Amino acid sequence: MSQLSKSLIVLVLAAAAGTTLAQQAAPKPENLIKWRQSAYQVLAWNSGRIKANVEGNYNKDDVVRAANSTAAIANSGLGALFAPGTETGKGWHDTAAKPELFKDGKRVGELAGNFTREANELAKVAADGDAATVKEQFGKLSRTCKACHDDFKVKEDRQ
Amino acid sequence: MSQLSKSLIVLVLAAAAGTTLAQQAAPKPENLIKWRQSAYQVLAWNSGRIKANVEGNYNKDDVVRAANSTAAIANSGLGALFAPGTETGKGWHDTAAKPELFKDGKRVGELAGNFTREANELAKVAADGDAATVKEQFGKLSRTCKACHDDFKVKEDRQ
Repeated sequence: MSQLSKSLIVLVLAAAAGTTLAQQAAPKPENLIKWRQSAYQVLAWNSGRIKANVEGNYNKDDVVRAANSTAAIANSGLGALFAPGTETGKGWHDTAAKPELFKDGKRVGELAGNFTREANELAKVAADGDAATVKEQFGKLSRTCKACHDDFKVKEDRQ
Repeated sequence: MSQLSKSLIVLVLAAAAGTTLAQQAAPKPENLIKWRQSAYQVLAWNSGRIKANVEGNYNKDDVVRAANSTAAIANSGLGALFAPGTETGKGWHDTAAKPELFKDGKRVGELAGNFTREANELAKVAADGDAATVKEQFGKLSRTCKACHDDFKVKEDRQ
């Protein structure tokens, strides 16, 4: 079979699958890095808001919004943003992920699971509006952030 | 009363309120701009994922995660990130918000309301897992994004 025939078959099969090459293309590594850096910034915004609430005047609605956003991002499938090919590179800035993050999937999965569990619990207690309980749960959540940063994020503050 | 006495009274009152000046400080405009740019990037990530699903192989779990994250961000109080003082300035990059956005609160509120309504609806239909309904609702949501970009976002693609 000629090379041209083979190429034509590939094109026909792709068309039959109802997809275009553009649709099949995976996002570029620099986009994945930019998106994960963005997701963590939204988490930082929410975290700062919750902190200001539990340390100052408590506004239940604001805390609920921030906690729900945090939980939804925790459950959004952030792991996909650490796909192979994103170990190094630049999104908004050079990635702050340590190389170890991409090698110890078991430990990373465990830490990510802790983060998601505590974020879900925060959204739950925020809905009840008890500031003291929210403050305690926010502390638990923050410690899951720190646990991962300690092991897998470069120390330099790039933000 | 001397100036020193007045200053001391201010300090004592601040201490009595149980807050520090650091806690009272509002986030810097550049942080607000960075956070809003980040929030829209997370929305872009989610949007791209949903698009890939409704145009390719439909994965209900992935769509639910992306739709829930989108709805939570739509409900997170993004308006606070467009506070006075953020009309110009640089977060990750110069703001892409047009000056008009800060002047026509009624119209912006209407467009933001449309966006939130359609995002909530998308999260609802995503949970049912009917790909065709999700595709239609995703189209409605995308049009609310475009409506606001058309009026209030500078055309140049800064991303």
